Amino acid sequence: MTKQIFLDQLDAHSLRERLANEKLTLIIPVGSLEQHGPHLPLGTDAILSTKIAEGVARELGALVAPAFAYGYKSQQKSGGGNHLIGTSSLSAATVIAQTKDLVTSYLKQGFEHIIFLNGHYENYQFLYEGIDLAMESLSREQLGDRFGLLLSYWDYVGEETLAQVYPQGFPGWDIEHGGVLETALMLHLSPNSVDMSRAPVGPAAVLPKFDRLPVVAARTPRSGCLSAPDGASAEKGKLLYDDVVSAISSDLAFELHEAVAL
Amino acid sequence: MTKQIFLDQLDAHSLRERLANEKLTLIIPVGSLEQHGPHLPLGTDAILSTKIAEGVARELGALVAPAFAYGYKSQQKSGGGNHLIGTSSLSAATVIAQTKDLVTSYLKQGFEHIIFLNGHYENYQFLYEGIDLAMESLSREQLGDRFGLLLSYWDYVGEETLAQVYPQGFPGWDIEHGGVLETALMLHLSPNSVDMSRAPVGPAAVLPKFDRLPVVAARTPRSGCLSAPDGASAEKGKLLYDDVVSAISSDLAFELHEAVAL
Amino acid sequence: MTKQIFLDQLDAHSLRERLANEKLTLIIPVGSLEQHGPHLPLGTDAILSTKIAEGVARELGALVAPAFAYGYKSQQKSGGGNHLIGTSSLSAATVIAQTKDLVTSYLKQGFEHIIFLNGHYENYQFLYEGIDLAMESLSREQLGDRFGLLLSYWDYVGEETLAQVYPQGFPGWDIEHGGVLETALMLHLSPNSVDMSRAPVGPAAVLPKFDRLPVVAARTPRSGCLSAPDGASAEKGKLLYDDVVSAISSDLAFELHEAVAL
Amino acid sequence: MTKQIFLDQLDAHSLRERLANEKLTLIIPVGSLEQHGPHLPLGTDAILSTKIAEGVARELGALVAPAFAYGYKSQQKSGGGNHLIGTSSLSAATVIAQTKDLVTSYLKQGFEHIIFLNGHYENYQFLYEGIDLAMESLSREQLGDRFGLLLSYWDYVGEETLAQVYPQGFPGWDIEHGGVLETALMLHLSPNSVDMSRAPVGPAAVLPKFDRLPVVAARTPRSGCLSAPDGASAEKGKLLYDDVVSAISSDLAFELHEAVAL
Amino acid sequence: MTKQIFLDQLDAHSLRERLANEKLTLIIPVGSLEQHGPHLPLGTDAILSTKIAEGVARELGALVAPAFAYGYKSQQKSGGGNHLIGTSSLSAATVIAQTKDLVTSYLKQGFEHIIFLNGHYENYQFLYEGIDLAMESLSREQLGDRFGLLLSYWDYVGEETLAQVYPQGFPGWDIEHGGVLETALMLHLSPNSVDMSRAPVGPAAVLPKFDRLPVVAARTPRSGCLSAPDGASAEKGKLLYDDVVSAISSDLAFELHEAVAL
Amino acid sequence: MTKQIFLDQLDAHSLRERLANEKLTLIIPVGSLEQHGPHLPLGTDAILSTKIAEGVARELGALVAPAFAYGYKSQQKSGGGNHLIGTSSLSAATVIAQTKDLVTSYLKQGFEHIIFLNGHYENYQFLYEGIDLAMESLSREQLGDRFGLLLSYWDYVGEETLAQVYPQGFPGWDIEHGGVLETALMLHLSPNSVDMSRAPVGPAAVLPKFDRLPVVAARTPRSGCLSAPDGASAEKGKLLYDDVVSAISSDLAFELHEAVAL
Repeated sequence: MTKQIFLDQLDAHSLRERLANEKLTLIIPVGSLEQHGPHLPLGTDAILSTKIAEGVARELGALVAPAFAYGYKSQQKSGGGNHLIGTSSLSAATVIAQTKDLVTSYLKQGFEHIIFLNGHYENYQFLYEGIDLAMESLSREQLGDRFGLLLSYWDYVGEETLAQVYPQGFPGWDIEHGGVLETALMLHLSPNSVDMSRAPVGPAAVLPKFDRLPVVAARTPRSGCLSAPDGASAEKGKLLYDDVVSAISSDLAFELHEAVAL
Repeated sequence: MTKQIFLDQLDAHSLRERLANEKLTLIIPVGSLEQHGPHLPLGTDAILSTKIAEGVARELGALVAPAFAYGYKSQQKSGGGNHLIGTSSLSAATVIAQTKDLVTSYLKQGFEHIIFLNGHYENYQFLYEGIDLAMESLSREQLGDRFGLLLSYWDYVGEETLAQVYPQGFPGWDIEHGGVLETALMLHLSPNSVDMSRAPVGPAAVLPKFDRLPVVAARTPRSGCLSAPDGASAEKGKLLYDDVVSAISSDLAFELHEAVAL
Repeated sequence: MTKQIFLDQLDAHSLRERLANEKLTLIIPVGSLEQHGPHLPLGTDAILSTKIAEGVARELGALVAPAFAYGYKSQQKSGGGNHLIGTSSLSAATVIAQTKDLVTSYLKQGFEHIIFLNGHYENYQFLYEGIDLAMESLSREQLGDRFGLLLSYWDYVGEETLAQVYPQGFPGWDIEHGGVLETALMLHLSPNSVDMSRAPVGPAAVLPKFDRLPVVAARTPRSGCLSAPDGASAEKGKLLYDDVVSAISSDLAFELHEAVAL
Repeated sequence: MTKQIFLDQLDAHSLRERLANEKLTLIIPVGSLEQHGPHLPLGTDAILSTKIAEGVARELGALVAPAFAYGYKSQQKSGGGNHLIGTSSLSAATVIAQTKDLVTSYLKQGFEHIIFLNGHYENYQFLYEGIDLAMESLSREQLGDRFGLLLSYWDYVGEETLAQVYPQGFPGWDIEHGGVLETALMLHLSPNSVDMSRAPVGPAAVLPKFDRLPVVAARTPRSGCLSAPDGASAEKGKLLYDDVVSAISSDLAFELHEAVAL
Repeated sequence: MTKQIFLDQLDAHSLRERLANEKLTLIIPVGSLEQHGPHLPLGTDAILSTKIAEGVARELGALVAPAFAYGYKSQQKSGGGNHLIGTSSLSAATVIAQTKDLVTSYLKQGFEHIIFLNGHYENYQFLYEGIDLAMESLSREQLGDRFGLLLSYWDYVGEETLAQVYPQGFPGWDIEHGGVLETALMLHLSPNSVDMSRAPVGPAAVLPKFDRLPVVAARTPRSGCLSAPDGASAEKGKLLYDDVVSAISSDLAFELHEAVAL
Repeated sequence: MTKQIFLDQLDAHSLRERLANEKLTLIIPVGSLEQHGPHLPLGTDAILSTKIAEGVARELGALVAPAFAYGYKSQQKSGGGNHLIGTSSLSAATVIAQTKDLVTSYLKQGFEHIIFLNGHYENYQFLYEGIDLAMESLSREQLGDRFGLLLSYWDYVGEETLAQVYPQGFPGWDIEHGGVLETALMLHLSPNSVDMSRAPVGPAAVLPKFDRLPVVAARTPRSGCLSAPDGASAEKGKLLYDDVVSAISSDLAFELHEAVAL
């Protein structure tokens, strides 16, 4: 029988048994509720980060905590902008507080490593601050060798995979919102939530080097996607998923188990 | 074809169409990640509030937002206490901030009513404050007739149902943590997450009239449940579920549609 | 000569002497400045909690700190609503911060037990959070056996007393705002502040199971009282007062002195 | 019959009547719970500011709100220091939040002027910030001609009075903590709380021009008073009280009634 | 005579005259106080952003506000880490609050555009949040066409310049801390603060794809630089400076003056 | 060769060497960006506090940190008021947070004493709170003998100097904003930033004993100065500067080096 991977499906007594017998790693998927164009659901970021976390947890023998279903404000250059209907966001202070509270709460219960697996670009720095504040609030004795870790899954897509997914050349992560990567992953991992008949077409958004607030709404394509998901397929999604899960897993396996030696 | 009920499964363009054509009501289920004894999963409160929200949304033509998977600290007299392993909590400031951010965000997008359906007793006052702060931050013109609404689902269990569920007399809500009500509902709504073979037995907890901090751990039964789920069954769960969904739905239907007349 | 019971009337040198020689318990009465109908003064909650604290302190040899004269927002279902003129409230963050600051401050000075005696329903959860944050900010060594404790006085009214005070049956605490209990207690404890000739009459308020914000003002009776103080008398007030003081005192006496054994 | 001056003794219906018919001024006395040597009670600052507020309110036809019984941290150069047992303080954020909440709450109810009458030096800047934040949170239309006002009562002691109270020359306000001024006022206004047989003697404290944290405890005299109350008497207290009440009253009368012309 | 460019050197009356007659743009340089290896001063980021702001302001007729001399925590992957002596940082909440306060303050005075010119990677998201909160706090009428804008100067280094500065290929921005770019710019703009005889040598840091907290100190090179400034020269600094100033200026000139048309 | 005095001009490796070999004192000058009339620049307070800090640091072998260029809101009675164009302010929470962050950050790096040298009256209490919060966040072991210190430079002007600078009698510090003291110091320390041909004339402002919010703008002289700088000269500036630097230096030298004995 396989062990339960999702923390919210586990009962407290079983968890206590595991914590007493293992150095347990917990992965917290972080998403958003954000417009992702006409063909992808609002929950795309949480769906993807949860699925990837699940894959990694299986490799590492880790648990997966309930995802953060809401994230920091969508920024125009990475997510189209926070003014778009369908996007429901938290302020920085809230993301930071939530992160700090949970890192502290999980560490106190005895988890050894808390890993935030981010699926919404804009969250990163606020998750970082939350983890850092949690660490500062613990004494060295309380903390021991335990640590927090933060990553965004797209940083683990390999060169080779990129070449296969984007045969005409990788256009850069900055316009990857509702584009090939997310669409392909969703086609592989949550096909019923995707409607390719509604997928937008047309050129990628051209956005300035700066952020301007309030945003000039006209700079975001009407679809809300920063690039079209041309050529996205479930096969490419599988390729991306397997690559990312494997890369994160091996990176973390090293970090978690060789940590003492550093 | 049935309309999509879960907001995170909806795409932004479809949402915009609905918001443009209807006065949309949004239900936010609120749970916790909290120990619920050896037989129920940590996610019980979110699972139950989400399922109930789904039932109500179906009646009302409303949407269901992603649940709050984490809640305010477990208190000894209602949840066994926050010191118990398996319980992962947010502080008051975080729950308030999260609530305020989302009420504001959803109202700005055009939702007409935001309903918090609470499944974790301890959350109530902090959700209330978050809604109130959001309302204060909007001008009367911005707000118009729109409103927020907050309820705890157990307040809708009818007398008759109570009598059927607790044939030997209802012992009171205060010791209902991991007891008959939650167990029966879970047996009906999420049977695979329940392991009745591990259900605790023995008398209900006897707790003081006050809250003491730090808690005296010995006051919470070793199981973590404040009463045993004796006699809980899927049938009773269905009875409870149908009763609660129907009572909330008719209460809200009146409130949402006759609101103007008040 | 009787010892001084009110902390603000004590001088610092006498306090130091007591702290050096006794395990001192401090009771902080918590009230509000809230409309209580046409016959009771705005300060009713602070007046009552202070008087009850005084009675308890006399039994326990404890001190009474200056009351919190302002409380959390009045909620419609327990106090008529925060929109009513005469009601002056603090936000949740303020109540929490004030509570945390004072618990920390008093514990650092050497008090052994800090007891919040609440007289305004809405305060409870915010006082709880404040006490909890204070406890978290102290190390186990700093804290030792010392603790904080929180109670609402009406939880100590006995069955028998209830039967005498409400000969036609107790209608429930939820509509007890400006009603029989508070009016009777005020007639006993602060008769000059009550004007029974202005007492409202008529049926109790019928309020929904949910909280709606902004409130529907028409749901609160014009008097501001959720039920009429029919039959309230100084005699019933004395009965209530003596019952509550005695019940709290004996409950606390046990808790404070047997605490070590738990 | 005299009108009720203390807001907490007034009922909501009477308050509404007054607010509907007058431009009402509200005075909030601000104190502290702070050691004041062996001869004065911990509540000295709140007692004095309340009594002075009462005198001024009588002159102006104003109301007096419940005092702030707790204040900002005692600073060594003005109050001996926050490390002294008997001193129970709020942090800056708490004082600011409390002030902001109440100014907003009172203005929304319809008070025309909110006057903070300060009796604890250290509070001043935090009260100022709280009032300012409240003003910023209101639009110009909401505010109209209404305003907040902040003063410390000792700034109203006249030259002539000073000469009479300190026949050997006024030593400066900085060492007036538990000294002649406060002791004399207390002897006049609350004689039963003063025990002159315990009054400290000896030279005034000599304190540096800077603040050092943590404080060097030895710099505060053992009594906790920064100067001895030599020559303090109820007569001098009456002189001071009458002078201050009259000076504040006439200053405010002009400000409140000629405000429009400015 | 040239107009004064630095706001802190301008007097208030001259500023008012300019604000009354022009649509004034204000540039706020944002730096940090952070270790930059043995050869660059701690103030490098503020020095560079101020100099670049000065160049841009000259082109645009803008003013330069006092720089933020302190920034968000140094992160290992971009600045070596916050644990290093010489690095003095602000928390996220502080950077956000400071930014919000100043954007609000400057907009209220009548500035038309507030531009944050960032010189410390880690600041970006917190500045963004601060600007956004300021915008949210203003009504549409108060804001009109005015806006805030945020950029990091290195995003404006052109391809051609990169090729000249890094003849052996550009190694990526992530290891550019105390490396060729910053060193060259400092040699051009503040040569007396650089000591090339102390410049570190050796290979660039190899850092993981994730952030781990607490950091593994050994991952940061002993110098504190993430890459060596091999080949940095004042000439390259001038090239970089001229390129960046010109690119930002022309980008902003378009944005500021064509803004209405968008 | 003279040692580098300004921290932002020092490199991290040199700083580490000094911290390893000396008990280092750090002085943080605190200013504001505030209107100072038509003849003085907006940055006056930061310019003066930095120059004085530099002089003191030279005497003590201390370092000078980057100044706080922005301060708390200008108050009418000390700076003319925060409504005046040219004044850009931080709220109390921001000044407190910034101060706390930096005291903590500097102490963790190994500085022995952190001295805030204030040049803007309104900052004082908020700096105090920030230092105090930093101290509270450290354990006694972490803190050891180290401390923070806070002073305003004008408290160090001696009687004799006052008599020379104000031959017709010193009018009091309260109206010294843009007046003789600041103008004279600026003429000595930063003559190019002063334009005496624009200096205001006329009588000093007459301001009430209270603070009123919103301010009555007409109470501040049109110049923005609370008194005219009649007779201010570079010579008087030198006299003031030398006096203040010498007085602070000797006061601090005693405090820093005899601290252990206290």
